[in-house]
Amino acid sequence: MNDQMMQNFLLKRASLTPDRPAIYFADQTYTFSDVFDKAFHIAGQLTSLGLKRGQFAGVLLANHADSAFIYLAFQLLGVKAVILNNRLTAHELAWQMEDSDSLFLITEELFTLKSKEMEKSLPNVTIINKEDLFNSPFVEPIVVNEMNLNEVCTVMYTSGTTGFPKGVLQTYGNHMWSAIGSALNLGLTEQDCWLCAVPLFHISGYSILMRSIIYGMKMVILDSFHEKKAIDLIENEKVTIMSVVSTMLTRIEEELGDQRLPEHFRCMLLGGGPAPRGLLEKCMFKLIPVYQTYGMTETSSQIVTLSPEYSISKLGSAGKALFPSQLKIIVSNGKDAKPNEAGEILVKGPNITIGYLNREEETAKRIVDGWLSTGDIGYLDSDGFLFVLDRRSDLIISGGENIYPAEIEGVLVSHPNISDAGVIGMKDEKWGEVPIAFVTIKKDMKEEEMIQYCLEKLAKYKVPKKIYIIDEIPRNAAKKILRRNLRLLLNKNMKR
Amino acid sequence: MNDQMMQNFLLKRASLTPDRPAIYFADQTYTFSDVFDKAFHIAGQLTSLGLKRGQFAGVLLANHADSAFIYLAFQLLGVKAVILNNRLTAHELAWQMEDSDSLFLITEELFTLKSKEMEKSLPNVTIINKEDLFNSPFVEPIVVNEMNLNEVCTVMYTSGTTGFPKGVLQTYGNHMWSAIGSALNLGLTEQDCWLCAVPLFHISGYSILMRSIIYGMKMVILDSFHEKKAIDLIENEKVTIMSVVSTMLTRIEEELGDQRLPEHFRCMLLGGGPAPRGLLEKCMFKLIPVYQTYGMTETSSQIVTLSPEYSISKLGSAGKALFPSQLKIIVSNGKDAKPNEAGEILVKGPNITIGYLNREEETAKRIVDGWLSTGDIGYLDSDGFLFVLDRRSDLIISGGENIYPAEIEGVLVSHPNISDAGVIGMKDEKWGEVPIAFVTIKKDMKEEEMIQYCLEKLAKYKVPKKIYIIDEIPRNAAKKILRRNLRLLLNKNMKR
Repeated sequence: MNDQMMQNFLLKRASLTPDRPAIYFADQTYTFSDVFDKAFHIAGQLTSLGLKRGQFAGVLLANHADSAFIYLAFQLLGVKAVILNNRLTAHELAWQMEDSDSLFLITEELFTLKSKEMEKSLPNVTIINKEDLFNSPFVEPIVVNEMNLNEVCTVMYTSGTTGFPKGVLQTYGNHMWSAIGSALNLGLTEQDCWLCAVPLFHISGYSILMRSIIYGMKMVILDSFHEKKAIDLIENEKVTIMSVVSTMLTRIEEELGDQRLPEHFRCMLLGGGPAPRGLLEKCMFKLIPVYQTYGMTETSSQIVTLSPEYSISKLGSAGKALFPSQLKIIVSNGKDAKPNEAGEILVKGPNITIGYLNREEETAKRIVDGWLSTGDIGYLDSDGFLFVLDRRSDLIISGGENIYPAEIEGVLVSHPNISDAGVIGMKDEKWGEVPIAFVTIKKDMKEEEMIQYCLEKLAKYKVPKKIYIIDEIPRNAAKKILRRNLRLLLNKNMKR
Repeated sequence: MNDQMMQNFLLKRASLTPDRPAIYFADQTYTFSDVFDKAFHIAGQLTSLGLKRGQFAGVLLANHADSAFIYLAFQLLGVKAVILNNRLTAHELAWQMEDSDSLFLITEELFTLKSKEMEKSLPNVTIINKEDLFNSPFVEPIVVNEMNLNEVCTVMYTSGTTGFPKGVLQTYGNHMWSAIGSALNLGLTEQDCWLCAVPLFHISGYSILMRSIIYGMKMVILDSFHEKKAIDLIENEKVTIMSVVSTMLTRIEEELGDQRLPEHFRCMLLGGGPAPRGLLEKCMFKLIPVYQTYGMTETSSQIVTLSPEYSISKLGSAGKALFPSQLKIIVSNGKDAKPNEAGEILVKGPNITIGYLNREEETAKRIVDGWLSTGDIGYLDSDGFLFVLDRRSDLIISGGENIYPAEIEGVLVSHPNISDAGVIGMKDEKWGEVPIAFVTIKKDMKEEEMIQYCLEKLAKYKVPKKIYIIDEIPRNAAKKILRRNLRLLLNKNMKR
């Protein structure tokens, strides 16, 4: 009973609906049959290079149809993919390769500088560019016809609050249940087509690939996000669902102007942190069907999503835990929070990671009785809807008052002259910490004006003590603000 | 890892979408919130009567919204429902109650004759009519907030080769995966509404109730099938999907005449045995979207279904195993059959029963390495599509009900005057098939007497329509009845 065997997802899908479109990339459409043929051929080439079932192997790739084929070849072979974030430095990447005991790295010429650098500290690792892989000989691969849902499919590293990255183990079952939870909430039709303009190396992108295979649904892959391209693809490829983070949605909303998205488009799945209320309101006004979600690498993508019928009445909420999953808020004494009382968000369900690679202690600490401590702060309103306030590490405590940076950032970007904002805490003798902001502006503006604007919208203790105008707010590939980089900036500014 | 905990399905659904319509019955619509309130109240009344978590308890009910509420109350309490077929005789029902050690029977006044009769042979069983149950005091129930997917939810009896019925154990996980497999094939939209005109005590009906809860979808319950009522409901209640067996579909097709079903209707899910090709062609002509399926109590409803894109090109096929499941054909030497070669159908997947209640030996014989031997005969064409040739060589399917000859033969030879018996199916315009018996007698006896004897022991649909007295029942060396010889005899008799 422990084992839950299921046919290899790609094999199954290629057998069920071989002729349906599966992947669209760079003006080319691949059916599920095509995708299987590609992945099978690559599996044979990986076999000739020595990759074997059960191994961990690194993958460092850009957003491209080839990357999807390579990921799926790994699944055919039962090789566990350590999926690397291509924006990291060679130093960070090498660390993850070593931590996961990966002996192979599949990458591409685009990242030659990084891989050359990595090579120096990874003498035992075979590094292969996809360009060479695709010219390698083919050896009939041993395909995993049936796999166990408890088997590890992918590993993705997250930093989290502690600083050192940890490899999050995602099983086939985690991915399957994530896809099921999403379908039970959003529904599923033969017309569905999901636009992937987020990185495939993130769970946000990889989960779209898994849904494509499990649902038998077309996915459109963009090499990188561009608002105009995205709008064109939604129109021309009949995209019905798109995954976005706030900054992407802002750019789409602005690019649209007076335009509307076409009728067939039914869901803008918004993740990657709490969204500014102003943006949600603008989207509502333009009839952009935004579904707020909450999720993380450890939950194999969204775990909390706002049901369609509440998108307006509960604007700003991330919704309720998807059908297979559960959610609760715990206050400092370990008890369940009361409605509207903020505390730590805990989640449970079959989409939750089985743990961190080689980190049993950390796993046991973070996952107790199936409940994952997310470290994030939020509350449930009296109807049980989740409102995410912020990540715990970002929490600014000033004179005993909790300050959530996202709230201040939301206010700043609601000003027509401010395009982006990031807020951090600064040590302060009197208050412990005070909030400090960094902004990018569209039009020249004085600091005093911005502070005055905040004073109108926020309690005085939340108003930034200092606002720096910079060229760009540092964000990671998932568009999350890199607050530690802001902290470095702050230190530099202070020393001057 | 063995346990897979999930929130109680009804609790979860009532929390996610309380205001969506859930059940429509007799001009009344109940939301999921209403359904929860009803089930919760009944759970409290069942508690006051003494039902407790983990028990098996019988349920003998008609198609009615109340029955759905009672089934769901059982789920809230974690009581395993032994779901009884209300067409069976008191004798057959009492046997199933004893076999499952059920100490409670929830029934209704409609079945008073049967339950009074059952009472005689079940001195320790508390029999409660729903009419009394609904007037019972309420005691705050202990609701199972989280349940294990491996836990048994329902037991449904099927006969089989041995003659004696066996209780098929269906877990919460079995029902969940069955619903998932169906959604991944048929899709799922907010507009979906499933018409249940098949019995709720069958897996065909009960599985619609489970889908309603898991999907958050409205189901329409009909007390009994009537073609005109069904067509009206499809129109007025905006039904999109309906489960049917051939006889029901024939009556709908005939009733329609030159009419068409409305545009919103998208799927006629056809189960209960191979369909006549003529009927499928007539439906194609009238644009009735028929999806042939194959499934059984042991697979918790459909396990093989024809995908929409093949409904015409593979007319007559039951399709391929649903996404979570697998299928193979085995020939007599135990090897996989070649394409187009007929053999026994084996199925595997998370929707397959964990076994037969208290029948470990039979379970071990029927389920090997996760593969269930169905006893049914079929072949896969060169594209891998299943064509079911015959349900278990001897199985008789009459109006969607399975009739096992061995069971009728057992009843016949239990009469002191009858020495041997053989039963086969005869083609019938109305029912598809009806049972016909051949007997050898010890003492002169009239056909009417034998039929009267059967009526006392067997559900009416199982009683042979004709009983022939012959000199010897043809048997092979292993004493197995040669049913094909009986068929020849029948043809001879018919020609006279």
